[in-house]
Amino acid sequence: MNAGFEDWYPVVVLGGGHGGCEAALASARMGVPTLLLNMNLENTALMACNPSIGGPAKGHLTREVDAMGGFQALAADMSALQVRWLNTSKGPAVRTLRVQCDMWDFHRAYRTKVESQENLQVLQAEGVDIWVEDGAVRGVRTSLGNVIGCRSLVLALGTYTGAAVYVGLNRFEAGPMGNLGSYRIAESLKGLGLRMGRLKTGTPPRIHKDTVDWGSIPLQEGEAEPCAMSIFSAPRVVEGFKCGCTRTSLETHRIIETSLDRSPLYTGMIQGKGPRYCPSIEDKVVRFPHRESHPVFLEPVSRCSNEVYVQNMSTSLPYDVQVRMIRTLPGCERARILKPGYAIEYFFVDPTQLEPWLEVRSVRGLFLAGQINGTSGYEEAAAQGLLAGANGALYAMDSEDRLVLGRHEAYAGVLVDDLVTKGTWEPYRMLTSRCEHRLRLRHDNPDLRLSERARSLGLLGDQEWRVVLSRKAERDRIREALRGTTVHPTDRVRELLMSIGSSPIEEPVKAIELARRPEVLWEHLSEITGIPGDLEAGYHVVVEEKYRGYVEREERHVERLKGLEGLPIPDDLDYDRVEGLLSESREKLKAVRPRTLGQAGRISGVTPADLQVLWMNLLQRRGGGKSR
Amino acid sequence: MNAGFEDWYPVVVLGGGHGGCEAALASARMGVPTLLLNMNLENTALMACNPSIGGPAKGHLTREVDAMGGFQALAADMSALQVRWLNTSKGPAVRTLRVQCDMWDFHRAYRTKVESQENLQVLQAEGVDIWVEDGAVRGVRTSLGNVIGCRSLVLALGTYTGAAVYVGLNRFEAGPMGNLGSYRIAESLKGLGLRMGRLKTGTPPRIHKDTVDWGSIPLQEGEAEPCAMSIFSAPRVVEGFKCGCTRTSLETHRIIETSLDRSPLYTGMIQGKGPRYCPSIEDKVVRFPHRESHPVFLEPVSRCSNEVYVQNMSTSLPYDVQVRMIRTLPGCERARILKPGYAIEYFFVDPTQLEPWLEVRSVRGLFLAGQINGTSGYEEAAAQGLLAGANGALYAMDSEDRLVLGRHEAYAGVLVDDLVTKGTWEPYRMLTSRCEHRLRLRHDNPDLRLSERARSLGLLGDQEWRVVLSRKAERDRIREALRGTTVHPTDRVRELLMSIGSSPIEEPVKAIELARRPEVLWEHLSEITGIPGDLEAGYHVVVEEKYRGYVEREERHVERLKGLEGLPIPDDLDYDRVEGLLSESREKLKAVRPRTLGQAGRISGVTPADLQVLWMNLLQRRGGGKSR
Repeated sequence: MNAGFEDWYPVVVLGGGHGGCEAALASARMGVPTLLLNMNLENTALMACNPSIGGPAKGHLTREVDAMGGFQALAADMSALQVRWLNTSKGPAVRTLRVQCDMWDFHRAYRTKVESQENLQVLQAEGVDIWVEDGAVRGVRTSLGNVIGCRSLVLALGTYTGAAVYVGLNRFEAGPMGNLGSYRIAESLKGLGLRMGRLKTGTPPRIHKDTVDWGSIPLQEGEAEPCAMSIFSAPRVVEGFKCGCTRTSLETHRIIETSLDRSPLYTGMIQGKGPRYCPSIEDKVVRFPHRESHPVFLEPVSRCSNEVYVQNMSTSLPYDVQVRMIRTLPGCERARILKPGYAIEYFFVDPTQLEPWLEVRSVRGLFLAGQINGTSGYEEAAAQGLLAGANGALYAMDSEDRLVLGRHEAYAGVLVDDLVTKGTWEPYRMLTSRCEHRLRLRHDNPDLRLSERARSLGLLGDQEWRVVLSRKAERDRIREALRGTTVHPTDRVRELLMSIGSSPIEEPVKAIELARRPEVLWEHLSEITGIPGDLEAGYHVVVEEKYRGYVEREERHVERLKGLEGLPIPDDLDYDRVEGLLSESREKLKAVRPRTLGQAGRISGVTPADLQVLWMNLLQRRGGGKSR
Repeated sequence: MNAGFEDWYPVVVLGGGHGGCEAALASARMGVPTLLLNMNLENTALMACNPSIGGPAKGHLTREVDAMGGFQALAADMSALQVRWLNTSKGPAVRTLRVQCDMWDFHRAYRTKVESQENLQVLQAEGVDIWVEDGAVRGVRTSLGNVIGCRSLVLALGTYTGAAVYVGLNRFEAGPMGNLGSYRIAESLKGLGLRMGRLKTGTPPRIHKDTVDWGSIPLQEGEAEPCAMSIFSAPRVVEGFKCGCTRTSLETHRIIETSLDRSPLYTGMIQGKGPRYCPSIEDKVVRFPHRESHPVFLEPVSRCSNEVYVQNMSTSLPYDVQVRMIRTLPGCERARILKPGYAIEYFFVDPTQLEPWLEVRSVRGLFLAGQINGTSGYEEAAAQGLLAGANGALYAMDSEDRLVLGRHEAYAGVLVDDLVTKGTWEPYRMLTSRCEHRLRLRHDNPDLRLSERARSLGLLGDQEWRVVLSRKAERDRIREALRGTTVHPTDRVRELLMSIGSSPIEEPVKAIELARRPEVLWEHLSEITGIPGDLEAGYHVVVEEKYRGYVEREERHVERLKGLEGLPIPDDLDYDRVEGLLSESREKLKAVRPRTLGQAGRISGVTPADLQVLWMNLLQRRGGGKSR
C-alpha cells in the first residue's frame, strides 16, 4: 500500500470493467502506482452480457492476455462452470476453449485481485472531467468533487458513456444491467475535440431456470478431459453443469416480424450501429428471411442465481413481444422473464485518432481501451486494457518504449492495428478471419509469442516466468526426443497406425516425421515411441510440426512484408491505371491514399492479391524511372 | 407459476428492498398473485448501510415479522457471521439479538426466496407512473413502457425516490451505493396531491480490511451459545468472525470541526432532515462538543469481500476529510477507503396521510411501506412491508378485514401508529422507549402475540404453524410442571440457591414461585427440579413468571385504555385552563385538537401523566354537566 499517494498517481484508470481492470493490473504489475476509479465496485468485471469467456479468436485474445500476465484467463478458470473446445473440426490453428463462467464468481475473482494487487489502489468514484493542459493530461475530476492528478489516464468506460437503454419504443438513461450511466465524461471528451459516434449493442432476456422444461431439450455438457484457459492454472475437469439447446421456429419469426413497428432498431429510434457479428434476433430474422430456425442456448449465469441467459436472442423488442417469442422456444413454453432484454446506445471515440499504442494522438497521456474504441466483447476489452495500461505506465515512467504488437505476433496486434488504421463504425468483434497469420497465432503458443516481451516490461512475475520457461523446456525436450527417435515398421506400429487410418510405414523413420501426418496425434506418438511428456506440450510440438511448412512460408512472407511495409506509394499514383485491382479496393485506395504499401495492406477490404498487384506496379514505376 | 398473469395482477409491489420483498412475500403467501417490480435484481434486499439485522427494538420488529411468516429473521440466520445478545443487563424485556450478516449471502437468500415463492413473479423494471382513476389505483406504468394493471399497489421505494447523493459540497443524482435513483415516480406521487418532504440519511466509508491493523485493537466475538433470530431456524453457534473496536479521538474531532465549511449538512446544501438516533459523526461532534471520544466498530461486510463497514462514522464530509479522520482511529492509521461515505437525500410522503393499515387515505389501493413513510432501518421497512403487503392483498380480495396491530400487541403496531398519528419530520427509528407496553412485547413471545392472527390470514404456512403450536405446547408443559412440582429445602437446593446469590428456602415451595426470583433462571430450576425442557421455552416461562405482576397490571391498564380510547374530547375544551399539563404538551394539544383521549395519547410528547390530567378534567366536565 502506498499511503503517500492520494492526490496524484502516475497512472489513473477510469472504469472497473474487463478493460479497466486489465489496464490497472498491467500498470501496477510494472511497478507504477496506479489508481482504479470505478463507479460501483459491485460491478467490477461485470459480465453484463454473455456469461462466458473465449471461443474462436476471443479465446486467442484471452490466452494472449494471459501470456502477458493478465488475469482474464485465470478468472475464467476460477469461475468455470463448463469448459468446451470449439472449432475442433476446423484445425488446430483456430481450435480454442470457451469457458462458461459463474458471473458472480468471476466478478469476485477480479474484485479480490484488483483490491489486493501491489501498487494498485481502488476507489469507488466516477471520473467526470478530464483535465488537460498544453496538450497533455494533467488529471481527472471525480464525482466526489476532488481532482486527482496523473501523468497517464486510461479510459475504459465500456457502454456507460452517455448511455441510453431501449426496450421497445421506450428509452431511458441508464448504463447496462440497470446501472447508472456516465454522462459528464462524454461532454468532457467532446470538449477535447475528439470525433465521437454512437454505437449500439444488446443483450437477451434472462429467464427463470425453474420455468424451463430442461427434460424436453438436448443438454450440452463440458469436456471430460482436464482443461484450463490460463497457462498458469492447473488443468481440471469441470463437471455437473449443463446448458440447454433449443431453437427458434417460424412462429418465433412471425412474432418478431409482426412487431417490427415497435422495434427501436427498425423505427429509427436507435441511431448507433449494432454489432454485425452478434446481431439481435430481429436483425437475424430480417437479414435471413429464408432461415426457418436459429439455434438458441440456455446458459445459467451462476450457481447461486435463478437466471438463465438466452444466448442468441439479444433483442430490444417490447417486453410483451419478448415474452411471446421466448415461449415459442421448445422447453420455454412456460418461461418467465426475470430481466428483459434491451439495447444500449453509447458514445465511442473514432479509434483512428489513436496511436498504435492506444494513446489519443492529440492528447498526450490519454489512453483508451475497450468499447470506447468501438469494440465489443470482454476479450477485446481485456487485450486493449492490458496494452493501454502498459503503455500508460511506460509513458508515466518517461520511457520511450511502447508495447505495440505486430499483426504477425498476436490477435491483439491485429485488433489494435485494425482499430487505429481502419477505424470502425460498428462494434468491432475479433474473428479468426481478420487474422492473416492465424496458422502462427495459435491458442497453444501465446507464451512463445508474447511472454518474453511481457517479462522484459515487468508484466510477468517471477513465478509466471518460471512456468513459461518450463513449458518451453518441456516442448524442446519432446521435440528433441521425437527428432532423435527412430520408429521401426514393427507389427505393433503398423497396427496402431492403421487403427487411426494412417498408412503403415515400410522403412524406419524418425518419429518427428510421423508427427507431420494430419491424423497422428501426440498420444499416438507417445505410445509408439514410449516418450513421456506433458499433454499440452506434446500437443503443441506435434501441431507445430504439422504446420511447419506453412508457418515457415508465412514467416518468409512476414519478413518480406516487413521489408515492403515502408515502401512508399507516390502521392500522384493513379489507381485507375493500376490494372488488376478489385474495383472495391480501387475505390478505397483512392479514398484513403495510403503513404506506404504497409498502410495500403491494412485498409479494410484490400486483399493480399491487390497488394501484389500494387507492388508489381510500384516496381515497374521504379524501373521506369518514375520514382520520386 | 401463474402463466396467465401478465398485464394484470391483484397486487403489484414496487421496490425489491427490505420492505418491498416482505410486502410481496406476504401478499403471495396469502394466495394472491403478486408481481414484484425491482429496478435491479442484483440489489434485492441490499444492505445498503449497516450489514446487520436486529438490536434493541429493531430485533423485536424482526421477530414480529418472523412470527407472521416473514423472511427477514431467516435471511439473517442464513447469512449470520456473528450473533450477539444485546441489552442483557437491562432486563429480559429489552434483551434482543443482533445478527451481523454477510450482506451478499443475505441478498442471495432473499433473492432466491422471492424468486421461488409461489404466487409471486419478479421482474426487473422500474415503476414510473401510478395510474389512478376515480380515487383508486388502476395500475402502474413501468420503465419498459408497458402498463401493468392492478388492484393494490404497494410502494416500497427506499431512498431511491428523487435521490441525490452528497459527498462534501458535491451533489449528484444517484440512488444508494452507486446505483441508479428513481425520479419519475416522485413526479407521479406529487401529481396525486400527496404532501411530500425531503429526508436525509447517510452511511460511513468502507475501508479495505487488509489496511486495518487488527492486532492493535480489541476484537469482539459472537455468542458461544446457540442462537437464532427466527423461531423457525435451528439455533446454532456462529463462530470465527470478529469485529474490531476502536474510537474517535480529539484529533478526529478537530479534523471534523475544521472541515464543517465543506460539509453539505452545515452549509445548508442538504435540506432534508437526518436521523436523530443515527446521526453522522459530524453531527455527534457538533452536538456533543464535550465528548472526547465516540466508539467505532469495524465490521467486515462479507466473507468474499475486502470491505469493512466503519460503524458510527456515517458522514458526508469531503473525501479527503474522510481519509484523514479515518486514519486518526487506532488500528486505522494506514486505512484505505474503498467506498467513501455519503449522505443521500430523498422524498418521503407525510405518513399522517395514511390509514392505520398503511393505505393512502386519498387513493384507494395505494399502500406505502418503509423509508417512503419517513422511517429508517431494514427492520422498520420489513415490518411495514409485511403489513402493507397483507393489507394490499386483503383489499385486492375485496375483504373488509385489515391487519392493524395495536400498540399493546407489537412494536410494529407502535411503529405504524406513531407514523400515521404523529407523523415524522426526521427518519423515524424504532426505540424500546417508544413502546409503552414493552414488558409484554418481548423478544421471546412474538409468536404468542401475533402468529394466530397471521395464521388466520394465511400468512403462516402449515409447517410454521406446527412450530408455533409445539413451542406453545412446550411452554405450557414446562409451566405446568413448575406449578406442579414442590421444591424441598434440601442441602443441594440450599447450596445451589446460595451459589447464585439467592436466599435459601426454609419451607417446601412450588417451583413456579422460585421462578419469580430475579436471579433464578430456567437452567437453575431445571437442575433443581429435574424437569427437562427446551432452553428457549424454559427461558420464556421463567421470564413471563417474573413479569407476571407487571404484565397483569399492564393488561388491566390496556383494557382500561381501550375503554378510554374513544372518550370524546369536546371541541371547545380550553387547554389553557386544564391545570397540570406540561407546557409542551399543552401547545401540542392546542395545535392538534385531538377528537378522543386515545388520539391525544398518541401525540408525540404527550405523556401518560398528561393523559391522566386530561382524563380527570374530562370526568369533572361530565360531572359538572358540561358534556355535549
